[in-house]
Amino acid sequence: MIPGEVIAKDGANGAECAGQEVAVIGLGSMGIGMAASLARAGAVVSGFDPQPAATARLKAFGGLPAAAPAAAASGKRVVVSVVVNADQTEDVLFGPDGCAAAMAEGGVFISCATMAPERARALSGRLEQMGKLFLDAPISGGSKRAAEGALTVLASGAPEAFERAAPALEAMAATLYRLGDAPGQAAAFKMVNQLLAGVHIAAASEAITFASREGLDLAKVYEVISKSAGNSWMFENRIPHVLEGDYTPHSAVSIFVKDLGIVMDMARSRSFPVPMAGAALQMFLMTAAAGMAADDDASVARLYAQVADLALPGMAR
Amino acid sequence: MIPGEVIAKDGANGAECAGQEVAVIGLGSMGIGMAASLARAGAVVSGFDPQPAATARLKAFGGLPAAAPAAAASGKRVVVSVVVNADQTEDVLFGPDGCAAAMAEGGVFISCATMAPERARALSGRLEQMGKLFLDAPISGGSKRAAEGALTVLASGAPEAFERAAPALEAMAATLYRLGDAPGQAAAFKMVNQLLAGVHIAAASEAITFASREGLDLAKVYEVISKSAGNSWMFENRIPHVLEGDYTPHSAVSIFVKDLGIVMDMARSRSFPVPMAGAALQMFLMTAAAGMAADDDASVARLYAQVADLALPGMAR
Repeated sequence: MIPGEVIAKDGANGAECAGQEVAVIGLGSMGIGMAASLARAGAVVSGFDPQPAATARLKAFGGLPAAAPAAAASGKRVVVSVVVNADQTEDVLFGPDGCAAAMAEGGVFISCATMAPERARALSGRLEQMGKLFLDAPISGGSKRAAEGALTVLASGAPEAFERAAPALEAMAATLYRLGDAPGQAAAFKMVNQLLAGVHIAAASEAITFASREGLDLAKVYEVISKSAGNSWMFENRIPHVLEGDYTPHSAVSIFVKDLGIVMDMARSRSFPVPMAGAALQMFLMTAAAGMAADDDASVARLYAQVADLALPGMAR
Repeated sequence: MIPGEVIAKDGANGAECAGQEVAVIGLGSMGIGMAASLARAGAVVSGFDPQPAATARLKAFGGLPAAAPAAAASGKRVVVSVVVNADQTEDVLFGPDGCAAAMAEGGVFISCATMAPERARALSGRLEQMGKLFLDAPISGGSKRAAEGALTVLASGAPEAFERAAPALEAMAATLYRLGDAPGQAAAFKMVNQLLAGVHIAAASEAITFASREGLDLAKVYEVISKSAGNSWMFENRIPHVLEGDYTPHSAVSIFVKDLGIVMDMARSRSFPVPMAGAALQMFLMTAAAGMAADDDASVARLYAQVADLALPGMAR
């Protein structure tokens, strides 16, 4: 039995981090909102992102731009890493100008990237040998909830890591699942979620275009299905993008190419078959190969429509 | 644009069918509950089922057993057919002792089986040539809601068919989606739902056994995922069967072998690719082939577990 608990906040950001110095590495759509939530909770936030545009966004709420991860993390007891994958996280920690050596002795590195459990365990092991703590803390909820300090965080790690990270987690999250005392456990929960989420996006895309092929009123299909046994969180959330023909990337196709790839690698390494995840990955790969890798993941529906010469809303035939 | 409306009842069964004679053909777990709901609403219910055990259940609430579909439907203006598929429906209508000739001139045949749209259209066409009405009316909600008169009915057909069927529909359903004025439209909506439902059961089964392979606490996985973006109606509804090791068939594996087969046939006939439905169908076929065709559809999880030598709750290794 893994120890577990849910900590729900009342939603109002307080002064959990008053005066605390926190570094945020990675100021994309998620990281910038998390940095802003930390600042709102009273933290002194230093940040780094290789994209120059991030500097202005950080300054807008009083954050302090740094020239490298090490400079942002220098002497800090809390470092939040909001990058895309395990390789970037490794670079943030152990690359040139990395955080591992620079952060305070006994400080905690809160790692938010989605990655294979074994990668989280390996990074944690290296960091702990340097006398610092690692919290495996993948996030979900999207950029809007990141900006509101209302993310869901799946976390596992040593009790001291949780203790040290608590004020920052409270500032950034509405719900914290405490999923175990070893890094890698939270990563595994996140991958189970991503397996389902990826399959459901592909299935929603297949179903709505199948409905189009059958000549059905797609708005009516959405209304009926979203109240029926065929519903999924992803169907309900993503199909409106298809109905509006709006593929502005809230979450890009490339994210699920990556995450379903991790699921496939994990499963293969344990000789475990995942044919549903495999079929979904192929659909995301086809969509990326057709030029839509950076578009919203509901673009899988556009791929089906292109293949079958169907005109979804907003699509030229 | 297909005309559509939702009619929600207040939930309390009234006397919608007071004194009306209604025949119900097919008294399985769904049909018997629907017959009981009709009787509760004041209908005089005659019923037929080839299984002798159904007779006693029908008599328990004052229903009148008949020896054949024709005998049950003789002279009736409303006949409800709650059989498994298109072939059985065709037999109920046009087979020896079928309802088509026996029912009243201008009466309505409410067809609840899940079937391909073209089959619904063909059956409707034959019946209309005999001066009788056909309502394409697939149902969902399970046996408990059938018994409560609280089903969801997806329906399409001529306005007169709806008008004649209205009291019976009100007695049996909590929600009626009126999806068009031609038989086959409701069938197509139902197949879109079944595509998603089938994929989601297979995905839920894959994900929970993948989580088991990763050594995660499955009750915790259920708790986290059912509140996360990876959730689906089916994950939330079926995974408790897995956690309890209870495969008593609420809905059998064979149902999705059938329904995903219909989806595949429909899609192929329109040259439309459905790889997600295809992968799911293979998982249901493997589960059926492994001897679990008549067990609950969450048995797909047992198939994954057997293949990977995992012990889910209630399973001998």
